[in-house]
Amino acid sequence: MSTSTPADSACCLPTFQGPLTTEEAEPLAAVFKAVADPVRLRLLSLIEHTEDGEACVCDLTAPLGLSQPTVSHHLKILVEAGLLTRTQRGRWAYFAVQRPALDEFGSLLRRRRETAA
Amino acid sequence: MSTSTPADSACCLPTFQGPLTTEEAEPLAAVFKAVADPVRLRLLSLIEHTEDGEACVCDLTAPLGLSQPTVSHHLKILVEAGLLTRTQRGRWAYFAVQRPALDEFGSLLRRRRETAA
Repeated sequence: MSTSTPADSACCLPTFQGPLTTEEAEPLAAVFKAVADPVRLRLLSLIEHTEDGEACVCDLTAPLGLSQPTVSHHLKILVEAGLLTRTQRGRWAYFAVQRPALDEFGSLLRRRRETAA
Repeated sequence: MSTSTPADSACCLPTFQGPLTTEEAEPLAAVFKAVADPVRLRLLSLIEHTEDGEACVCDLTAPLGLSQPTVSHHLKILVEAGLLTRTQRGRWAYFAVQRPALDEFGSLLRRRRETAA
């Protein structure tokens, strides 16, 4: 494990920069916790791939096969983690992916999908 | 949200490739769950930065300020998630970071640290 890493991606630093302090680890762990749920990962990917990049609960219950309160619960957690924005328009709230936060997960998700394919 | 993304890293695909199925989301969520804990993130970063890239529980209790059973518990979770390997040598088990799995977190962790700096 002490050898250098032949990373298969040229730009993405494939290592920790140094030992994390508790203060550094806590916010990271909080974001990981928000996405440590299959339904929430599916929600993020569904919203990301709607035509105009946003969705209301009414758009999301059918593809997930879950009730509106359950979907709303997961959306709330993603909003609180800073991964989704919430905009009220009339009677519905619309959710969109927070680009900078989700960008951080990009390479990870791509590699996982390539591995699974 | 429907515009293309001016990603600040050239190689890391900053998006989901498509809506995730439950089968795709579940293993991803499991890995996120393993790292959704500040102690486990600190453990990974500590082991990564030991001189020879591996550590036994005896090396890790002091920097974390935690008891051996507690550290062992978290190490076990990281081994089960495929993020650490465990090698028994004499009376101690030595833990090393599983490179391919940790590589996936590299760019994420780097960005977080840069943001915090």
